[in-house]
Amino acid sequence: MKRIGILTSGGDAPGMNAAVRAVTKTAIHHGLEVFGIRYGFAGLVAGDFIPLTTADVDHKINLGGTFLYSARFPEFAQEEVQKKGAEQLRKHGIDAVIVIGGDGSYHGALALTRLGINSIGLPGTIDNDIPYTEYTIGYDTASTTAMDAIDKIRDTASSHHRVFIVNVMGRGCGDLAMRVGLASGADGIVIPERPYDVKKIAETLKHGFAEGKDHGIVVVAEGVMTAEEFREELLKYGDFDARANVLAHMQRGGSPTVEDRVNATKMGNYAVNLLLNGKGGLAVGMEHGELNTHDILDLFEAKHQGDFTLLDVNDEMTKLD
Amino acid sequence: MKRIGILTSGGDAPGMNAAVRAVTKTAIHHGLEVFGIRYGFAGLVAGDFIPLTTADVDHKINLGGTFLYSARFPEFAQEEVQKKGAEQLRKHGIDAVIVIGGDGSYHGALALTRLGINSIGLPGTIDNDIPYTEYTIGYDTASTTAMDAIDKIRDTASSHHRVFIVNVMGRGCGDLAMRVGLASGADGIVIPERPYDVKKIAETLKHGFAEGKDHGIVVVAEGVMTAEEFREELLKYGDFDARANVLAHMQRGGSPTVEDRVNATKMGNYAVNLLLNGKGGLAVGMEHGELNTHDILDLFEAKHQGDFTLLDVNDEMTKLD
Amino acid sequence: MKRIGILTSGGDAPGMNAAVRAVTKTAIHHGLEVFGIRYGFAGLVAGDFIPLTTADVDHKINLGGTFLYSARFPEFAQEEVQKKGAEQLRKHGIDAVIVIGGDGSYHGALALTRLGINSIGLPGTIDNDIPYTEYTIGYDTASTTAMDAIDKIRDTASSHHRVFIVNVMGRGCGDLAMRVGLASGADGIVIPERPYDVKKIAETLKHGFAEGKDHGIVVVAEGVMTAEEFREELLKYGDFDARANVLAHMQRGGSPTVEDRVNATKMGNYAVNLLLNGKGGLAVGMEHGELNTHDILDLFEAKHQGDFTLLDVNDEMTKLD
Amino acid sequence: MKRIGILTSGGDAPGMNAAVRAVTKTAIHHGLEVFGIRYGFAGLVAGDFIPLTTADVDHKINLGGTFLYSARFPEFAQEEVQKKGAEQLRKHGIDAVIVIGGDGSYHGALALTRLGINSIGLPGTIDNDIPYTEYTIGYDTASTTAMDAIDKIRDTASSHHRVFIVNVMGRGCGDLAMRVGLASGADGIVIPERPYDVKKIAETLKHGFAEGKDHGIVVVAEGVMTAEEFREELLKYGDFDARANVLAHMQRGGSPTVEDRVNATKMGNYAVNLLLNGKGGLAVGMEHGELNTHDILDLFEAKHQGDFTLLDVNDEMTKLD
Repeated sequence: MKRIGILTSGGDAPGMNAAVRAVTKTAIHHGLEVFGIRYGFAGLVAGDFIPLTTADVDHKINLGGTFLYSARFPEFAQEEVQKKGAEQLRKHGIDAVIVIGGDGSYHGALALTRLGINSIGLPGTIDNDIPYTEYTIGYDTASTTAMDAIDKIRDTASSHHRVFIVNVMGRGCGDLAMRVGLASGADGIVIPERPYDVKKIAETLKHGFAEGKDHGIVVVAEGVMTAEEFREELLKYGDFDARANVLAHMQRGGSPTVEDRVNATKMGNYAVNLLLNGKGGLAVGMEHGELNTHDILDLFEAKHQGDFTLLDVNDEMTKLD
Repeated sequence: MKRIGILTSGGDAPGMNAAVRAVTKTAIHHGLEVFGIRYGFAGLVAGDFIPLTTADVDHKINLGGTFLYSARFPEFAQEEVQKKGAEQLRKHGIDAVIVIGGDGSYHGALALTRLGINSIGLPGTIDNDIPYTEYTIGYDTASTTAMDAIDKIRDTASSHHRVFIVNVMGRGCGDLAMRVGLASGADGIVIPERPYDVKKIAETLKHGFAEGKDHGIVVVAEGVMTAEEFREELLKYGDFDARANVLAHMQRGGSPTVEDRVNATKMGNYAVNLLLNGKGGLAVGMEHGELNTHDILDLFEAKHQGDFTLLDVNDEMTKLD
Repeated sequence: MKRIGILTSGGDAPGMNAAVRAVTKTAIHHGLEVFGIRYGFAGLVAGDFIPLTTADVDHKINLGGTFLYSARFPEFAQEEVQKKGAEQLRKHGIDAVIVIGGDGSYHGALALTRLGINSIGLPGTIDNDIPYTEYTIGYDTASTTAMDAIDKIRDTASSHHRVFIVNVMGRGCGDLAMRVGLASGADGIVIPERPYDVKKIAETLKHGFAEGKDHGIVVVAEGVMTAEEFREELLKYGDFDARANVLAHMQRGGSPTVEDRVNATKMGNYAVNLLLNGKGGLAVGMEHGELNTHDILDLFEAKHQGDFTLLDVNDEMTKLD
Repeated sequence: MKRIGILTSGGDAPGMNAAVRAVTKTAIHHGLEVFGIRYGFAGLVAGDFIPLTTADVDHKINLGGTFLYSARFPEFAQEEVQKKGAEQLRKHGIDAVIVIGGDGSYHGALALTRLGINSIGLPGTIDNDIPYTEYTIGYDTASTTAMDAIDKIRDTASSHHRVFIVNVMGRGCGDLAMRVGLASGADGIVIPERPYDVKKIAETLKHGFAEGKDHGIVVVAEGVMTAEEFREELLKYGDFDARANVLAHMQRGGSPTVEDRVNATKMGNYAVNLLLNGKGGLAVGMEHGELNTHDILDLFEAKHQGDFTLLDVNDEMTKLD
């Protein structure tokens, strides 16, 4: 192996650049050449490759987004398109590829591996919804952005004794909502994986105001319903001065946190070592605080398991009477 | 004059607490007693007064929101309710009042002055929409919050070559949109006070992409239309991958910036001195960087003048061909 | 058990307030009363106790420092002083105590347990230097503060092609330096637990500049030497434009991060449950991402184990020729 | 005039990149070509010029430091070196130059103008120490960074009832110390332009603690003495638990604030217009909130005037008994 490629795919996530940097610097340390593949699998098929040196990644560790760009490219599900991609790589002498992205990207990595180009997948998404990993690159920064926004919202909620219903991202996964909710002292946290009880949340809010609390916060995962929809449900159970808020796309950006930079760096470094050891078709993750690998195939049959004890802890801090 | 009251009214704004602190500390320096009036004019009529010492405001300068709380109270437009308020003040020996809030609050301050309680209005609103002042308490923090959010949004916009339409607050006033737009390097800024040209903004965006820009940002004041409405108009002029974003209530909160803390402190200090000099019925503002006062009556007949040269500067940095 | 006390001891750390909040809310959920013991063990002996309600902790989760205050009190090493403390607790009907602090505080918690007052220790220090735990409350916020400062320093380093030597805290423990160094893309990381090689760091810096890097960063744990001392050593190996920086006490403060709020909340909640189960003399920690407990006695004979693979990863991203 | 150059000189300051971006975009709007001159006057003499397009400045508005780099170059005081510089410019067809930097850079701008290359100086320094301007590019960001650091320091000060003496930058100018001090609620502010009274500050601190304040902050401009020196003086007047802190170089970096981006943009835009009107040898500044120009020659004979009313306001919020 003399030359490796790296691409980012799917929605961007803070820390992707830190991972690209770590891949680049680790690979160069081991005497390899590195090529950045721009615009994900679309760029792979088009041959949009740029050489990466250590100087190129000098100022990337603290940068949100992905400087290699990303792009939707459903065509890569077709075998002939995959073959074109593998051809492009061979033409450029690229022996192996590291793919950073959501679970969609793993299909591409597996396809390349089957076509003889060892590929490793790194979990890059703010949604934390990938199987066999408790952490995805970008998850901590998105949590931080959402929490910081709710800290600000709390100021205005308190000034007016209001309740704010806040939508956070996460698609079908409630991890972001749970973590942000717990960190924000939310009175209620609503996620897709568990039933929710609007009446109980209304009671909690009322009880809080009765005890002297001056505001209420409910964090609702976007995968359940819109904040406005929840607000309407809530108003059936009480006469709250309630407002709906959607944090939206700012959660995808921003300079990555310590956690995201450190983990992205460790994962990027690890992925190069896997390639050096001749591995392919693997997904890197983190379980019990340690890096792991799983066959990508296994991921397709599994489902991400969130840490639902966060919900239990939040419940156990609530007393209704 | 031995005892003064202070209240916050209308929507909360970062820096209100810094102003309350400055009023409290300046008044105590001059041997006065200070009472916080909670919940704005509602609390004034209800007699919800709390004594304020220097220790009470010890940790308030960096706090968003208003720890005196605010509340809607349209009833204060009625003369009999105003009289009840003045009575409450007299009953508690309060000789003068400082009111921090939007232009609604000035009516209350004027009414109290006419009833013999000298009152001074301080401009407290993130909207920067008060006549005879180029600055209102909270405006700089709200600008900062909006700009920080757009900095994050730019990361994801760039990663995907997208255009983001971002709604910022400001009600009928375009100042926030202009300042945030200029600070965010927006391709277009849309405000209520000036006609806008969607076609020209679309051309600017296209030209940017053609020249190698990897994203587009359009800042739209909420007083013009929703981001989604603008997005739909924009799509008539080009096939953009465009998303709509509403920054919403987070713009109202957060720890105040240097500018807001310094100005709120200067204004609070100044207002106490006005009262010490027997003044009432005045609104404090800032023109050409200096504190000023105007009769509150004058404000009702005037309109805030924004600095529209910001738009001109933005236009003069755009080249279409 | 009807009433529990909680105190913070040693140096303050962001997240202590979140832990106090979680203890208070969990205890009240279970029908217990909670008393805050102010000024650590000094206040315990003096009987400086304040009742805590849910409203009292309403705005504490996002607050740095410790609102219960902390204080040095070496006298608590004496058995008679310990007995006085236990007496005070009994007099106030307090059956059990939760202590949040550095390893010094564990001695106090053990002493109380031996005197019949079940006590649980929570790891609260930015230094991450407590045995049997990979995480201490405040560690993530301190890492974040240090990293943010270095991000700013990098701007000026790059503008002038300078090298900055930055001292971070951690006392005898290198965890903060390692994590911050990796997250900051440092060219060198110097910690107390491992030998360091100034010459090699000088070579790395020279190599970086030769390759086109426009700055250099070396993170030095305060437990090794001052930044200025390192700077002088460095200059023996090259003609760098090098500056020394000490980040100092700002690393102790600030609003806690998501990670610190979530972990502090989980730990506070867990500690109450331990007390409810009749446990005492235990230290709560986190290993492999899960909460654990150890006999406090065991901690006195053990040493914290850092994750030195972070150093290895950093080394493996460096290439000298 | 067909081609202009732009350089940054002296210490870097946040907002310099925003100014370079504004110059570039405004000049291109007017049909000019723009060259970035790297490494200040050193690069000017060496002919280190790079063409700048709108795409080149696409991601610069939010970037701290100066991407054109800066460098010390005292040799430019010599006439023959100045002539070499002018020659380089002519060789490259550059008709005019915009210089962003501290007062040192104005000498260079004037020299070039006298040699027939119209040059305009923009005030770029965090120190706010330039005559005939109340604002310099970077001043607001540095104020913000210092205030944020002190907000964190206050947390730990409060937890331990400590006094912190904090050194902020500013060289011979006290503006940064005054503004940061007022925004941080400092008990004392010490600047070079005014006598200071350690005894009075000690009394203020004691009085504060006596009244229930839980911490003390004194902001000392680096131009007066070190924080440690002040601490030693302070201890003569009281038995404080006092610590010294030097904020140092982080004050020079960081993403610019709204104020710095907006003002840098306005000034960059304005400078191009001055050149278009055939002006040279002028320094741009801001007085009473409006852009102004002065002959550079006048600056050499004048001294920056700070707004010392900030000190008076701080004094008027202090009551000793």
